[in-house]
Amino acid sequence: MNTPRHVFYISDRTGLTAENIGEALLNQFGNLQFKRSTYPFIDTPEKALAVVEKVNRSAQEHGVRPIAFVSVVNHEIRHIIKEANAFVINFFDTFLGQLEKELNAQATLSLQGHHSIGNTQRYDARMEAVNFSLNHDDGVSDKNLKEADVILMGVSRSGKTPTCLYLALQYGIRAANYPLIPDDLESTDLPRMVKPYKDKLFGLTIQPERLQAIRQERRPNSTYAKIDTCRSEVSDAQAMFKRFNIPFTNTTDKSVEELAVHILQACKLKRRF
Amino acid sequence: MNTPRHVFYISDRTGLTAENIGEALLNQFGNLQFKRSTYPFIDTPEKALAVVEKVNRSAQEHGVRPIAFVSVVNHEIRHIIKEANAFVINFFDTFLGQLEKELNAQATLSLQGHHSIGNTQRYDARMEAVNFSLNHDDGVSDKNLKEADVILMGVSRSGKTPTCLYLALQYGIRAANYPLIPDDLESTDLPRMVKPYKDKLFGLTIQPERLQAIRQERRPNSTYAKIDTCRSEVSDAQAMFKRFNIPFTNTTDKSVEELAVHILQACKLKRRF
Repeated sequence: MNTPRHVFYISDRTGLTAENIGEALLNQFGNLQFKRSTYPFIDTPEKALAVVEKVNRSAQEHGVRPIAFVSVVNHEIRHIIKEANAFVINFFDTFLGQLEKELNAQATLSLQGHHSIGNTQRYDARMEAVNFSLNHDDGVSDKNLKEADVILMGVSRSGKTPTCLYLALQYGIRAANYPLIPDDLESTDLPRMVKPYKDKLFGLTIQPERLQAIRQERRPNSTYAKIDTCRSEVSDAQAMFKRFNIPFTNTTDKSVEELAVHILQACKLKRRF
Repeated sequence: MNTPRHVFYISDRTGLTAENIGEALLNQFGNLQFKRSTYPFIDTPEKALAVVEKVNRSAQEHGVRPIAFVSVVNHEIRHIIKEANAFVINFFDTFLGQLEKELNAQATLSLQGHHSIGNTQRYDARMEAVNFSLNHDDGVSDKNLKEADVILMGVSRSGKTPTCLYLALQYGIRAANYPLIPDDLESTDLPRMVKPYKDKLFGLTIQPERLQAIRQERRPNSTYAKIDTCRSEVSDAQAMFKRFNIPFTNTTDKSVEELAVHILQACKLKRRF
């Protein structure tokens, strides 16, 4: 059967958790096709009934019931959605009762999700980390660099900026980055700006062929994008990491999520919120 | 009992999904204290045994078994972790069999998680969105503004930049932003730079008291941070949104995650990957 199965993500908050669980599970059925619809902020019986109608209509149209990943705290709304003509996976229903027993405590059923703003002070710290990372992107400023939790170092287009921003947004980590330019790579010393913070340095390296592809997109047919340039810059950068005992990782096959977790682990950093 | 219960997040990949589910559930026990440890990349039996030992030691030390949220694909490793002296919540174990039956398909048990780099082309599109958002932060450039999926507009410090970056990183959305400066707010027209893209505009507003607190942090005792300045800027911005029928939302009590989902919904945007 080639019609993609319809997947509904239904939540009374952002839907991020429902999507997260759902995608992790669907990923294990790599051969199948899915069509996805997300319904966030379903926080009234009226909205719930409207979604149920959409689910039922889809079941009728496709001749097969949809899958629904549901992350709803409110009992009444959960109950309404359960009646939909769908295969419903509701992790609150499944796990909350077990946890109540294990913890010997009653769930408060708070609508305040962990993607909510929660504690304003902690949230502000996270936003401050984003500002910090932006202000210390691409080695633009060494002001307050001593306040950095980590300084990522690597050649141009090795993946520093998105990784820094992810570390800031997801973990509240103050992540600066410093681009290794040819002048730095020719020197046998660490770049002047980051030298005082050797213990905070973490290196990113990349397969030269992948680097070339990325640079070619940016500046087609430039010396910058030549495979020889990429090879020698990458090899010089790695030599520097090894010479100064800077931990480093290869970004070629890693997503920003994976890179961030690797860096947290290697630098023994803890999330700030 | 006041000792915080020890929570382990164990994964053969990033651990993000395990943390996500765990935090969503623990959040429902707002009165209890938890101590958290994350063990990502547990992808060999040796690493699994080492984690089990850590779990068992914690159980012994605290006199109560820890909670373990486990997101492990590999059968052998899952089996090892199951033997730990912990209350184990493993959503793969719980839901994968049910889904196999419903989909009439066998799970491939791929280690390629949905936080992996996956399809390189799709991943590059997401990183391109990050670059786009960085290049169009704070109204710095109107070059290629027509390629934006959305343009956030609001007074200084209303939350535009982190929201744009989150939209780019999480959803691959090309989100530009334009800061409304006093000159813009005095005019009865839309700012020249964004006027051609009226349909892409989305406004952010904020409670003046909260804005004042944020600005005061940045530039203490400046005119910029005065409550009167904040009040009049916010009121002018809202008047502009209403005059030009620009959809807008109040950022005061919303996290970047919630803002992003609101904007996707209001602007009917779809994730790009």
